[in-house]
Amino acid sequence: MRLSRYFMPILKENPKEAEIVSHRLMLRAGMIRQQSQGIYSWLPLGKRVLDKVNAIIREEQNRAGAIEVLMPTLQSAELWQESGRYDAYGKEMLRIKDRQERPMLYGPTNEEMITDIFRSYVKSYKNLPLNLYHIQLKFRDEIRPRFGTMRSREFLMKDAYSFDLTKEDAEHSYRKMFTAYLRTFARLGLRAIPMRADTGPIGGNLSHEFIILAETGESEVFSHKDFVNFDIPGTDTNFDNVEAMQAVFDKWTSIYAATSEMHDEEAFNAIPETDRLSARGIEVGHIFYFGTKYSEPMGAKVQGPDGKEHPVHMGSYGIGPTRLVPAIIEASHDDNGIIWPASVAPFDVVVINMKPGDEACDRICETLYGGLATVGKDVLYDDTDERAGTKFATADLIGVPIQVIVGPRSAASGEVEVKDRKTGERETLTVEAAMNRLAGR
Amino acid sequence: MRLSRYFMPILKENPKEAEIVSHRLMLRAGMIRQQSQGIYSWLPLGKRVLDKVNAIIREEQNRAGAIEVLMPTLQSAELWQESGRYDAYGKEMLRIKDRQERPMLYGPTNEEMITDIFRSYVKSYKNLPLNLYHIQLKFRDEIRPRFGTMRSREFLMKDAYSFDLTKEDAEHSYRKMFTAYLRTFARLGLRAIPMRADTGPIGGNLSHEFIILAETGESEVFSHKDFVNFDIPGTDTNFDNVEAMQAVFDKWTSIYAATSEMHDEEAFNAIPETDRLSARGIEVGHIFYFGTKYSEPMGAKVQGPDGKEHPVHMGSYGIGPTRLVPAIIEASHDDNGIIWPASVAPFDVVVINMKPGDEACDRICETLYGGLATVGKDVLYDDTDERAGTKFATADLIGVPIQVIVGPRSAASGEVEVKDRKTGERETLTVEAAMNRLAGR
Repeated sequence: MRLSRYFMPILKENPKEAEIVSHRLMLRAGMIRQQSQGIYSWLPLGKRVLDKVNAIIREEQNRAGAIEVLMPTLQSAELWQESGRYDAYGKEMLRIKDRQERPMLYGPTNEEMITDIFRSYVKSYKNLPLNLYHIQLKFRDEIRPRFGTMRSREFLMKDAYSFDLTKEDAEHSYRKMFTAYLRTFARLGLRAIPMRADTGPIGGNLSHEFIILAETGESEVFSHKDFVNFDIPGTDTNFDNVEAMQAVFDKWTSIYAATSEMHDEEAFNAIPETDRLSARGIEVGHIFYFGTKYSEPMGAKVQGPDGKEHPVHMGSYGIGPTRLVPAIIEASHDDNGIIWPASVAPFDVVVINMKPGDEACDRICETLYGGLATVGKDVLYDDTDERAGTKFATADLIGVPIQVIVGPRSAASGEVEVKDRKTGERETLTVEAAMNRLAGR
Repeated sequence: MRLSRYFMPILKENPKEAEIVSHRLMLRAGMIRQQSQGIYSWLPLGKRVLDKVNAIIREEQNRAGAIEVLMPTLQSAELWQESGRYDAYGKEMLRIKDRQERPMLYGPTNEEMITDIFRSYVKSYKNLPLNLYHIQLKFRDEIRPRFGTMRSREFLMKDAYSFDLTKEDAEHSYRKMFTAYLRTFARLGLRAIPMRADTGPIGGNLSHEFIILAETGESEVFSHKDFVNFDIPGTDTNFDNVEAMQAVFDKWTSIYAATSEMHDEEAFNAIPETDRLSARGIEVGHIFYFGTKYSEPMGAKVQGPDGKEHPVHMGSYGIGPTRLVPAIIEASHDDNGIIWPASVAPFDVVVINMKPGDEACDRICETLYGGLATVGKDVLYDDTDERAGTKFATADLIGVPIQVIVGPRSAASGEVEVKDRKTGERETLTVEAAMNRLAGR
């Protein structure tokens, strides 16, 4: 992408409304724009990151055997009356009447709708286990949306729903998602700690929040420090292996971790003082096992091997991609801007032409831009007429992992400078060597 | 994907509510499910097709220089009061009040919001041309939604918006999208005819609808027959070349084509009778040039080379992916079911195991399933215990382009049958030959 033809509206001033660093940096880098209170547009740079986050979430859901669907945003109130949540949900639910005066709502979550889909088609235990997910917009009419897309009203959620014949099977499904979440967050460059959590309006009695530590987090959390040393389950993980899933779950729940709602002061104090971690965190995922809470009232039953009908055991599993983007920034930035993990960077490389119009600079930049695109790299080419200082500041601000600086002096001798955004290390390389390095050869 | 672990709820009976073949087939193949009137869930098979359609639309938008963003579904009423459309839009606009009693709406289109984004950031003609698009849900509260996702209330739309300094530049932007649309529909396996169209509530005086011919179409259309012979612009198309875009546009508007609203009986009758085409069609895209209709009242101005401020000239360009899926089916099916063009097929190949449990059948199926996945093919493996007749009927119904039938007799001699869904041709091949054929070697 040539920057001269791109749309990346960088703000020079720090926006006043931004209270936390991720919100400030997302506005300054031209990633998002607020359209109404708690409702955002994703501008091109932000959309790229969001897509990469979604792609990783999707890959890990598929790996764990979940199947993607797409449910609509608007739901009929009737469904929620069946489950009993229509009256219980409160003012965060955006209630709507259509032109026929039918009561509708903008889905804050999809337990009812997926249960309705399930009961319409699945009649036998032979079709279980089943886990269906979608990545779809939700709306929760928060009284005080804040921190940009960290707590917005219209937001994207990946929500998965598992269906099993028995509690034991459902717990295995739960542990599969638990494991998938560990992998997902690790691939996003985050170290997330699973913590026993309150179930809130979803219901049930088994629930974990996945929390990443950040000073600006809204949750107060308490945990053992050893989580940082735990291995993340590998790509060879067999999600069908009940013992393997149990082992992952046991390992990651073997030491203390809890949000303030579930905090047990006594258990925490039993940890040696140097191993205690008391901090603030951001919730980036939340999983629930809630048994037959929805299947029972909504009649989602299957015939079991005994020939009788049984309400299915269900769980639900949420991750918020539009929250993950700022969460990643909270965990990875410096005074100059964002530092993207390579897995979600909007571009892999930014090629900075220090003197557009200079024959050697232009030629080398075009060679790198074209060559890297050919090997599948996402390249941003800064071909603008901005001053050098502005170009450097922009490259640092938007956090692309590798910068290639092409200036007239080194270009004349066929060389470029390669800078690592994270470490700040710079190295002078021939164009060919830079190309090989960046192409991963 | 193993069918035994997939979620593809095939209906045996023809659903009563489906009036047209695409609606019937989408329900029977388990692609969609109606959740409320005109509001649908996309089940896994449907979601796969929808994703492939979106990917092609996105590639062609990017190729033509448009840049992807993501605007929210809910909009503030204020924006629409600025343009004057809030009162004008009528009952199809779903109006909503949030918990603070602020008037909102579920966006039926995004001219106002994109104009608001533009005016917030772009101040100089030097940043033009600009074309921003998104693929996002819209809601239009139709009094009579029908034909499944062909005319639904909540639907997906790709809408692009171009910004230019002058009318001439804007007309070039219009012709770029015109050309991109020709390429998009061709890649989706559709022959779309651009027709002069009425501008409706979007406004302006230059507009084309892209229509595909189908008996079940809602529009009455009149055109010259020669469109079927016109070449589609190739992948080497230079969208920056003003003359090239003009040439494509001139060619494709050189012969008569109009919807009934714009029909000119006299001009039509001037066509030799054997070249006249009077038929029904489905609108699959609609593009507009509307000048300063929104930029003027909303103050979207840039400084021109003359140092003065000018309201920008705009166009908008819509394609409905959730309508395209049934449109493709209307154009490509037979009595047994859907016949997907390869570009949007939910799977490239279905491997049908005629006798799961038979050692040779299982081994050959696993070899094909694993081997084809390795070379990047999307494979559905029918490993279920259904009867042969049911398996064949399902494979035909869901319209996967290639079926590989693995039966015990031929498996024993290391052979499989490869069937082309479209032609019905069958060929017996060794496993290795089948693998090479299907892997495209």
